[in-house]
Amino acid sequence: MICQIDGGVCAAKGFTAAGVHCGIRKNKAKRDLALIVSEVPASAAAVYTANLVKGAPIAVTKAHLQNGRAQAVICNSGNANTCNADGVEVAEAMCDLTAKALGIPADDVVVASTGVIGQPLDIAPIAAGIAPLKAALSREGSRAAAEGIMTTDTALKEIAVEFTVGGIACRIGGIAKGSGMIHPNLATMLVFITTDAAIAPAMLEKALKTDVANTFNMVSVDGDTSTNDMVTVLANGLAGNAEITEEGADFAAFMEALNTVTVYLCRAIAGDGEGATKLLECTVTGAADEATAKVVAKSVICSSLLKAAMFGADANWGRVLCAIGYSGAAVDVTKIDVTFTSAAGEIAVCAMGAGIDFSEEKAKEILSEKEIGIRIELHSGGAAAVAWGCDLTYDYVRINGDYRT
Amino acid sequence: MICQIDGGVCAAKGFTAAGVHCGIRKNKAKRDLALIVSEVPASAAAVYTANLVKGAPIAVTKAHLQNGRAQAVICNSGNANTCNADGVEVAEAMCDLTAKALGIPADDVVVASTGVIGQPLDIAPIAAGIAPLKAALSREGSRAAAEGIMTTDTALKEIAVEFTVGGIACRIGGIAKGSGMIHPNLATMLVFITTDAAIAPAMLEKALKTDVANTFNMVSVDGDTSTNDMVTVLANGLAGNAEITEEGADFAAFMEALNTVTVYLCRAIAGDGEGATKLLECTVTGAADEATAKVVAKSVICSSLLKAAMFGADANWGRVLCAIGYSGAAVDVTKIDVTFTSAAGEIAVCAMGAGIDFSEEKAKEILSEKEIGIRIELHSGGAAAVAWGCDLTYDYVRINGDYRT
Repeated sequence: MICQIDGGVCAAKGFTAAGVHCGIRKNKAKRDLALIVSEVPASAAAVYTANLVKGAPIAVTKAHLQNGRAQAVICNSGNANTCNADGVEVAEAMCDLTAKALGIPADDVVVASTGVIGQPLDIAPIAAGIAPLKAALSREGSRAAAEGIMTTDTALKEIAVEFTVGGIACRIGGIAKGSGMIHPNLATMLVFITTDAAIAPAMLEKALKTDVANTFNMVSVDGDTSTNDMVTVLANGLAGNAEITEEGADFAAFMEALNTVTVYLCRAIAGDGEGATKLLECTVTGAADEATAKVVAKSVICSSLLKAAMFGADANWGRVLCAIGYSGAAVDVTKIDVTFTSAAGEIAVCAMGAGIDFSEEKAKEILSEKEIGIRIELHSGGAAAVAWGCDLTYDYVRINGDYRT
Repeated sequence: MICQIDGGVCAAKGFTAAGVHCGIRKNKAKRDLALIVSEVPASAAAVYTANLVKGAPIAVTKAHLQNGRAQAVICNSGNANTCNADGVEVAEAMCDLTAKALGIPADDVVVASTGVIGQPLDIAPIAAGIAPLKAALSREGSRAAAEGIMTTDTALKEIAVEFTVGGIACRIGGIAKGSGMIHPNLATMLVFITTDAAIAPAMLEKALKTDVANTFNMVSVDGDTSTNDMVTVLANGLAGNAEITEEGADFAAFMEALNTVTVYLCRAIAGDGEGATKLLECTVTGAADEATAKVVAKSVICSSLLKAAMFGADANWGRVLCAIGYSGAAVDVTKIDVTFTSAAGEIAVCAMGAGIDFSEEKAKEILSEKEIGIRIELHSGGAAAVAWGCDLTYDYVRINGDYRT
């Protein structure tokens, strides 16, 4: 049984967190530096952006996690520390400062940055901010840390759940920032997950990579892959379960809890995409294989035309079929059924690849809700996939078309 | 020497055209049926959408062009005749009606449709419209035909040029419709090209396929591939040149003239993309191979973030680098130079993958023009490519978010 609880990244035993304003951002009301610390060294794993242009913090974190261990996460917003000549040096300095303050090795620190790219990141405000940040560390610090990593996210993203591994109660929680932009820049997805479950680094990495393929890799706000995306998980083992070292019931229990956290955060990120007014969840069933289901779901969720139609609460199912058709997946278009769903009900709009009579009034009612489901049945097998996205709105254009200068 | 001339699809000898309102569209001021006719049977070739969901006219045209010959093109706007149970029947009926009126075989007719999908196309207004359409055929009919295929295009797209093959003057011209929508639906690119050059069907097909890979396949308005895209060319041989049956100087001369027509139409389609205020032309040079150059150019032109930045005249070069980084091309990001150009000048904004000092004021002046060049030098070889797109604007969202109902 998985139960939602409070506490975010501090829900698990032995984790504290904090977020402060150190001065990277001009607005003093906005926290711009966050810290998450485990009492003891933790198993650690991460996945990173596939973009060839990578932020300097990615390179440093990758090096630090080679040994599968970490004890702290330091993250700033306001500057992505990407495409800067001294980027790696600055990211390492962030780790050194954090390590020194906490009395831990620098290579046990995970570092991340989000914000404008191509502008040097001044280490001075961070150096000055580390002491107050450490002083602010607390078991109630998750929200402050979540605020510290936000850019133009309109909602704080935090979740925690309790689950059991071998009869022992464990907790896992996470914070995330999504596709908000600072003035200006790249949308970046950062996710930090903490758990007190005991799990070997190799199994933690396996769990994260397996899960991400079905969760964060199935989220799209605008099809642009950021240079700084990172999802990390720290597992400090303080729950006291027998360490998970192989697949089996314990690993499955852990995977299920992890998935609860990540799906929640995926939905939160997609629903709070830049300018979004609606969360879109596309569920593909009846696919010949999982790869096909994923390709179809992502193609639909990425279609600018469909996204704009959803903004307009327009049951334009032709755009769903169109996006399936150009997805690259080998599907039989004459077998496709499409149904729109929401809290207001559901309505079938296309059967066997052709339009069917439906009430435009009812469709509009359904599509006027905040969370829209797009269900696609391919009638070609047993595989399924889910992808998350959001509508395309005037505000997306406003946010991203604003002058930087 | 290639000289631009008037006449569009009627510039070449032996071609007449017409466009009328037959009643598919409710607005009587809008022509919705177009016809292009050659005096004699012509070599014919076409390329079609890669979307698996294909309009019924695509299937019928493909069958009719198997023999590499055609004499007329019939095209309606207002309804795409796609995802309809009787689609093929209706498309064939359009050909039959046209063939009967002109006294030619039905399989010498090319048929195309653009507009809303999933709504049955009534043959009645077309049947009634064929006689007046035939009566309106004239050497001055290119503009009327171009109007007849427009949906929400804001500008008519027409071009013709004169060139020589073996000392004989030939003409080639084309009309196109781009990424406008009717209320509602899928953007569709339709291009009809006519020439009086004599060229064998196989060489015509080769010329078209080769050219399209560098022209229409390098245009993106919103990344959505329509169900009804089609580019056709008819060559009736009335110029009297020795028929082009192999590669050589004559074929090269034809290719050059064809490319002049297609590049012009590509720029016209991209610049008139839905809601667009700017034409974007991305030129990639110094690539290791052509495939890399193409992938990079298309990725940049398709980036929603960059498109929105261009709308805002924001020199956000980080988004260019980001789009290159996630393009999938194997490029050395530390070697990339980026320059923005326009009629107002040019400005280098990134060198060797890192930002360089530049005047934001000058950059804004350059990016405030209507036609923007994005020049990317990869410093990794001698291959190059060009892609065309447009900015992402409030109007794109308005046009595509409107209620269908």
